[in-house]
Amino acid sequence: MSKRFFIQYTDDDTILLQGQEHHHLVNVTRAQIGEQVIVCFNDGYDNICEIIEIKKNHAILKRLSRQKNNNETDIDVTLFQAAPKGDKIELITQKCVELGIKSIVPFLSQFTQTKESSVKTERLRKIAQEAAKQCGRAIVPEIENTSKFSDILPRLKDYDYILMPYELEDQTDIKTALKAATYPKMIAIIIGSEGGFSQEEVNQAKEQNAQTVTLGARILRTETAAISVVSIVMYQFDQLKKGEQ
Amino acid sequence: MSKRFFIQYTDDDTILLQGQEHHHLVNVTRAQIGEQVIVCFNDGYDNICEIIEIKKNHAILKRLSRQKNNNETDIDVTLFQAAPKGDKIELITQKCVELGIKSIVPFLSQFTQTKESSVKTERLRKIAQEAAKQCGRAIVPEIENTSKFSDILPRLKDYDYILMPYELEDQTDIKTALKAATYPKMIAIIIGSEGGFSQEEVNQAKEQNAQTVTLGARILRTETAAISVVSIVMYQFDQLKKGEQ
Repeated sequence: MSKRFFIQYTDDDTILLQGQEHHHLVNVTRAQIGEQVIVCFNDGYDNICEIIEIKKNHAILKRLSRQKNNNETDIDVTLFQAAPKGDKIELITQKCVELGIKSIVPFLSQFTQTKESSVKTERLRKIAQEAAKQCGRAIVPEIENTSKFSDILPRLKDYDYILMPYELEDQTDIKTALKAATYPKMIAIIIGSEGGFSQEEVNQAKEQNAQTVTLGARILRTETAAISVVSIVMYQFDQLKKGEQ
Repeated sequence: MSKRFFIQYTDDDTILLQGQEHHHLVNVTRAQIGEQVIVCFNDGYDNICEIIEIKKNHAILKRLSRQKNNNETDIDVTLFQAAPKGDKIELITQKCVELGIKSIVPFLSQFTQTKESSVKTERLRKIAQEAAKQCGRAIVPEIENTSKFSDILPRLKDYDYILMPYELEDQTDIKTALKAATYPKMIAIIIGSEGGFSQEEVNQAKEQNAQTVTLGARILRTETAAISVVSIVMYQFDQLKKGEQ
């Protein structure tokens, strides 16, 4: 498993690591001069680099090659997550990044019991970057600022499949729903917080073509639902395979 | 969502709650005399009871009816989990109980970096019971004492499907494998710890008919792998539906 670093795009074959990524290189991975590491510009490519120089506040790397990273999914999954209590959204972020999600949109809904300020967006971005490094991705999923439920509704038209687990859904289970979906490319998953959704919110989402589903008889905690549903979507749409996807 | 309590089996329609479950009734759920709660004997049935008397050290309940709990899966999934670092097995236990697993067997393998004493079995049993209550189950999954990998091998013959994610598996992905499985009833899932499995261990498991699979290009942490694979198995074998299963 190669050591990964995320920096801004550069055309230059001589690459400068500073700040957090320099700290990560020197103090966390303890990389040495001559060692090969991967530098990513958050564009889906891996830049294979050799470490040329390590100084107190920077390091110089030389790019040896650039190649497409094959660890990204070929579907685009966004998790719309109602802000849960405590720090559960940190767990959700870490796990969903490993599972291949492209972005997370925290939101507040009618029965959400947390405040916007309790979602520590910067901290979640750091967790997302660390998880992306750990699992070998070349894109750090975007963590958006916290929205209101009413603000995410008009955005749902950008997705060709919208999955919304709902406790009171009795007719359609997740498997029946997903098997009827014909390999969508842009997928939205909407997960409620501890309090769930109001009937009004569910109706509003359905008007935007959201497919409500049951996850079965056992009541899953919000963070379990998020991780499980993302796992299942990646499984159903063939994203848990190796190699070219 | 009704309040649930687990006690030993009794034939009597007058039921005594003491100790931890009395504490849970009085101080956690703050139940009142006259209220209906569910008492489980860990046998798959719900006993609907009315609270008759609450005293300092006990409570008396009257059983009104007894009915089959429909929240249990009709497959029997055991998670054989190599002991991960830190307290990750607590997260695994909580989530896998919600997802419907029947038992968890922690084990030590060649590359496991934790000691047997770091698996706090009693604490995990408590977490399993709390999770079972929260998600409406009538059976508390069994948390076994920590085994050695060599001790779990001969037990695998009790299962009709054995799924073993393995980092170096390049041929078979989890979906291809599970789709070829014809609705097994007894399923074992074997998850490695941070260090993974040795080639020797994988060969030994394969001799017991374990199906090794890849979970794809992104490297999942051990706890993510456990939760994801249990989610996927429940999904694939139709256990995420409501009602009679």
